[in-house]
Amino acid sequence: METKKIGILGASSYTGCELVRLLSRHRGAEIAFVSSRSYVRQPLHSVYPVLRGVFDGVCIHPDEACENDVDCVFSCLPHGVSASLLLPFIERGVKVIDLSADFRLRSAHNYASWYNTTHPAPQLLDKAVYGLPELFREEIASASILANPGCYPTSILLALLPLVGHGMIPHDAVVVADSKSGLTGAGRTLKQHSHFVEVNENMTPYAAGQRHRHVAEMQQLVQQSAGATHNAPPRLVFTPHLLPVNRGILSTMYTRVHDDARACHRILSDAYANEPFVRVQQPDVHPDLHRVARTNYCDIGVTESGEDNFVIITSAIDNLTKGASGQALQCMNCMLQFPEAEGLDL
Amino acid sequence: METKKIGILGASSYTGCELVRLLSRHRGAEIAFVSSRSYVRQPLHSVYPVLRGVFDGVCIHPDEACENDVDCVFSCLPHGVSASLLLPFIERGVKVIDLSADFRLRSAHNYASWYNTTHPAPQLLDKAVYGLPELFREEIASASILANPGCYPTSILLALLPLVGHGMIPHDAVVVADSKSGLTGAGRTLKQHSHFVEVNENMTPYAAGQRHRHVAEMQQLVQQSAGATHNAPPRLVFTPHLLPVNRGILSTMYTRVHDDARACHRILSDAYANEPFVRVQQPDVHPDLHRVARTNYCDIGVTESGEDNFVIITSAIDNLTKGASGQALQCMNCMLQFPEAEGLDL
Amino acid sequence: METKKIGILGASSYTGCELVRLLSRHRGAEIAFVSSRSYVRQPLHSVYPVLRGVFDGVCIHPDEACENDVDCVFSCLPHGVSASLLLPFIERGVKVIDLSADFRLRSAHNYASWYNTTHPAPQLLDKAVYGLPELFREEIASASILANPGCYPTSILLALLPLVGHGMIPHDAVVVADSKSGLTGAGRTLKQHSHFVEVNENMTPYAAGQRHRHVAEMQQLVQQSAGATHNAPPRLVFTPHLLPVNRGILSTMYTRVHDDARACHRILSDAYANEPFVRVQQPDVHPDLHRVARTNYCDIGVTESGEDNFVIITSAIDNLTKGASGQALQCMNCMLQFPEAEGLDL
Amino acid sequence: METKKIGILGASSYTGCELVRLLSRHRGAEIAFVSSRSYVRQPLHSVYPVLRGVFDGVCIHPDEACENDVDCVFSCLPHGVSASLLLPFIERGVKVIDLSADFRLRSAHNYASWYNTTHPAPQLLDKAVYGLPELFREEIASASILANPGCYPTSILLALLPLVGHGMIPHDAVVVADSKSGLTGAGRTLKQHSHFVEVNENMTPYAAGQRHRHVAEMQQLVQQSAGATHNAPPRLVFTPHLLPVNRGILSTMYTRVHDDARACHRILSDAYANEPFVRVQQPDVHPDLHRVARTNYCDIGVTESGEDNFVIITSAIDNLTKGASGQALQCMNCMLQFPEAEGLDL
Repeated sequence: METKKIGILGASSYTGCELVRLLSRHRGAEIAFVSSRSYVRQPLHSVYPVLRGVFDGVCIHPDEACENDVDCVFSCLPHGVSASLLLPFIERGVKVIDLSADFRLRSAHNYASWYNTTHPAPQLLDKAVYGLPELFREEIASASILANPGCYPTSILLALLPLVGHGMIPHDAVVVADSKSGLTGAGRTLKQHSHFVEVNENMTPYAAGQRHRHVAEMQQLVQQSAGATHNAPPRLVFTPHLLPVNRGILSTMYTRVHDDARACHRILSDAYANEPFVRVQQPDVHPDLHRVARTNYCDIGVTESGEDNFVIITSAIDNLTKGASGQALQCMNCMLQFPEAEGLDL
Repeated sequence: METKKIGILGASSYTGCELVRLLSRHRGAEIAFVSSRSYVRQPLHSVYPVLRGVFDGVCIHPDEACENDVDCVFSCLPHGVSASLLLPFIERGVKVIDLSADFRLRSAHNYASWYNTTHPAPQLLDKAVYGLPELFREEIASASILANPGCYPTSILLALLPLVGHGMIPHDAVVVADSKSGLTGAGRTLKQHSHFVEVNENMTPYAAGQRHRHVAEMQQLVQQSAGATHNAPPRLVFTPHLLPVNRGILSTMYTRVHDDARACHRILSDAYANEPFVRVQQPDVHPDLHRVARTNYCDIGVTESGEDNFVIITSAIDNLTKGASGQALQCMNCMLQFPEAEGLDL
Repeated sequence: METKKIGILGASSYTGCELVRLLSRHRGAEIAFVSSRSYVRQPLHSVYPVLRGVFDGVCIHPDEACENDVDCVFSCLPHGVSASLLLPFIERGVKVIDLSADFRLRSAHNYASWYNTTHPAPQLLDKAVYGLPELFREEIASASILANPGCYPTSILLALLPLVGHGMIPHDAVVVADSKSGLTGAGRTLKQHSHFVEVNENMTPYAAGQRHRHVAEMQQLVQQSAGATHNAPPRLVFTPHLLPVNRGILSTMYTRVHDDARACHRILSDAYANEPFVRVQQPDVHPDLHRVARTNYCDIGVTESGEDNFVIITSAIDNLTKGASGQALQCMNCMLQFPEAEGLDL
Repeated sequence: METKKIGILGASSYTGCELVRLLSRHRGAEIAFVSSRSYVRQPLHSVYPVLRGVFDGVCIHPDEACENDVDCVFSCLPHGVSASLLLPFIERGVKVIDLSADFRLRSAHNYASWYNTTHPAPQLLDKAVYGLPELFREEIASASILANPGCYPTSILLALLPLVGHGMIPHDAVVVADSKSGLTGAGRTLKQHSHFVEVNENMTPYAAGQRHRHVAEMQQLVQQSAGATHNAPPRLVFTPHLLPVNRGILSTMYTRVHDDARACHRILSDAYANEPFVRVQQPDVHPDLHRVARTNYCDIGVTESGEDNFVIITSAIDNLTKGASGQALQCMNCMLQFPEAEGLDL
């Protein structure tokens, strides 16, 4: 396996640590640099002691990063900052994988209204490929700018898009997605709502209705998938909840369909029959977080609701792996012609 | 305050312990006996050491219990057993409050099909009153057999019934109720799915579709409430989830409505304006488990979904208090003419 | 019961909320004011929604507080600030109960070296009474300045002081106290080490050796207790650990003794035979956090270690109740001649 | 790397699952069989769905297992059963690695008194090698019967034995080991004390004094280590505690020493300078569970206690990895001449 040089911007985030952990086991990747504005000249293992002995590299300042000679750069930076710091790499022809939201939306106008800021490189938006390898593998293989999907969208779209693509969901249906996420999804920055005492023994809905930014990318993908079949897209109502666990997202989805659960199960089983990282459960079996924790799997379950033409679909992922760094690595494997599962075994 | 003598069957359950805890602070109640088949002649505080010094009573065998001279008996026994052991008390004219499901359904046929067993006293089913004091206070005041509601139904029905009663929910709507419950709701009996390692850092949907027994009582109440307004009832799709906390239920509900969230909020605010134990939140504010933990409150939130005529409603209760023993005590207060909040302060 | 007017400084802290919760059930106390610099003119229930309907008072600025006519003031402020804001009350003859460390140490020099700041009122230090009612009830009854003990010291001293007082611990013994504390003990202020993801599924020793400030007050009390019997005091080695729970402290203590576990058990049983809030367990039975959660109990266990003249003693408290606000209220009851257990039932 | 055939008895235990997970990534090991009396003819992933797609093998009955042609057999069975089922393999010259306690003690008499049962093959006890590779690497390399250490002893002995071996601990010292363990250490069998509600938000000491069976192997090893230097061994007082997390053991140790913390730190640093799986922290830095979770590391910290000649030592491991299956695999690597870290990266 040829060795490729990899850079990581924003390495002191949870997704950065997870990426380093995964890359340390990848047989073809060599970490050329890790950057972190807050920990310049400190080893990354001073932030994540688990990495001591595994990765002893020292953080550089992001400004120094862009001079590095690398084959691929991951950005674990927040939206807004991320695109700006990736630009120099893009200009030099380095492949970039952005874990932030900066390249997910096609429309700069849409981006501005959801993210309250002007996009620094709107001309690049339609060059970016949305990184769900199970659905867009070919585009990803030739992408130079990869927009890594949000964690909630990954769990929801992998379950819904094949159904939308088959015209199974009526255009006037309201699809309910009730998601429960562990706290690593909220990041490492201190906030009252991620203080231990506030979270522990609690369960909190937030950003209900269509106020969570991930709604934007989900609607875009649902529209695109429906459009490919000349159907009007169904609408999505999404409520995320903070769950007192570290890792994992469980999404429970409810929707009217043209047929029954068995037909939905067949579509999903067929869609993912040869996929290494999506496991459709037996009918009426629902996934849970344990079976996907610290893996790159997305497990999907389908069940009858008891009402005609109405099904319940559940999906579970690890938000830091399949929902972020694992999927980003899976995309990198596609982009750099590594075997897709390299570095992503259990 | 006149003192009433109270008995508790099945006191070694979690709801039994909670009831003893609450009654120990009630100024008009005296615990005449606690029974437990497994702990005969042992103090209840050998099972729940927290009670030591608070309640030093010794468990008697349930067979001895029925000879006791009491004003009111609570049963914390499992369904099936519960009605049978309450019968002698009912025959002697003692008021009974059944925390099991045995007196919740009106139809013996319905009971048999949901609970896989023949009801021991079908002739009593239509004498029983369903114990949601906020909605059925008058019937409760004169009840001799009280069916204490299930924990999930309490959280869901307090939010939905006023809307159903006002004809706000279209008869052809499918109301989604996605509930998350702490583990005390699964009881003290050992099961693989309540083993610490299986639950901790996990989130598990179960009995999805209409397979959970609480669906039966919810549908009965929704029908009754719709019937009162000569409307056909909407249908309910319910998925419970096991949440890695000890106490609390959060239900997130999604439904089409004839009007908007503001109108729904007004109906609920009006319905509960004078209720001590239901707190309707400001619009767009959602409850969480912390604000109701170890209290008899049900907190309800209403928000726009972003789709026209489609709202999101959340409710939170403590499953052992408002969802079981607290509500049972609230009903007892009604039945024995105590102030309704006695023993139920924070 | 005559009604007394009570003020609370620093009410938006966890101990402030707990105090309000407890006082709301006290039959002789009326909350005259709550102050919080961060939430001026906001209801306290905007910070702690559980209090809505229970206590609807609005926070005032601490500067306004001192003009209030009250019988007793609690301070839940941090050390340093606390004594300064209590001074005006002390000068006006209002009884004060300080939950911070400001009045715990007798020596201003000692205070300065442990707390890195000059004490604002060193002349008052020897007027303050250390608030362990089981051991210093008489002094507390006539105190005007009460120093509420630290949470760790409460759990450790209640177990050790009777043994020290009986000369049971050799003067050259090193007493090991290994304590495990829930996160409310670390307060509501955001810190990396109290971020949910850092605490959950973790266990962290900190401030090992004699670097935790609570060592200072423990040594002072041990010396005082040993001095009363003309013995040299044993030395204490203390390691606190952060435990991923919200509430509770478990301290496991190890010490050489002149006799055996049975003799130690007898001393402790005798010392607390008539105490409502200290429950010495049967020999070889150890307490846990559940049996004291949200109570004012301190449960103590004694066991043989397997080595001659060496015993293991465990104690459990709720750090916010017996370890802070509950004990403060117990002291208030002594100081204002209320029944000592008023407002402190389960 | 030559491929070796591996069998696993008792594969449905938590340690069995962990072993399968680790072996699935080992480049030289092929799982020849997994056995489980309870799940005969069922795929192991029916018990542990996380394994689906990773290991699709079906459980056989243990009676069928012994006819298999394998190079090495692991037993994850309970003590008593384990030695009996390993005997046929031992007789055929297959190397065995026993994760139970059956081969840990040298004396059959000692075994009988701690485990209340007669050893089935006492003549083999002195052939067994105790599997701490860092301390007994050479003996392990040529062992045919490997006794994998207990989880608590691994965490404690790696920290203490180098000090004992250097004569640093006085023979009349009482070494205190206060250990906190996650619940996987209590196994998958249902017990009241591992029921979610009992464990969550709790902390429980158990088997205090010298009543935990791991004391036997720890004393044996301490004696052996002291004996090698012609010193009398110090005594150990051990209290395990149940900690509400899934994985990890933190042991906090307290002991008198002949010198100071710096000298102890030097001994430990030297002892493990070239060890891939033991990381001695900088002085005064203590490990926590996060930095060793799901790794084969043992992290050790040393600090001054504030008392002369008295130190605090902490160690952290993952009880299922370094405390069980990871260490067993590390031993297998020694025994079968694989690189010692194979299959044990992060």
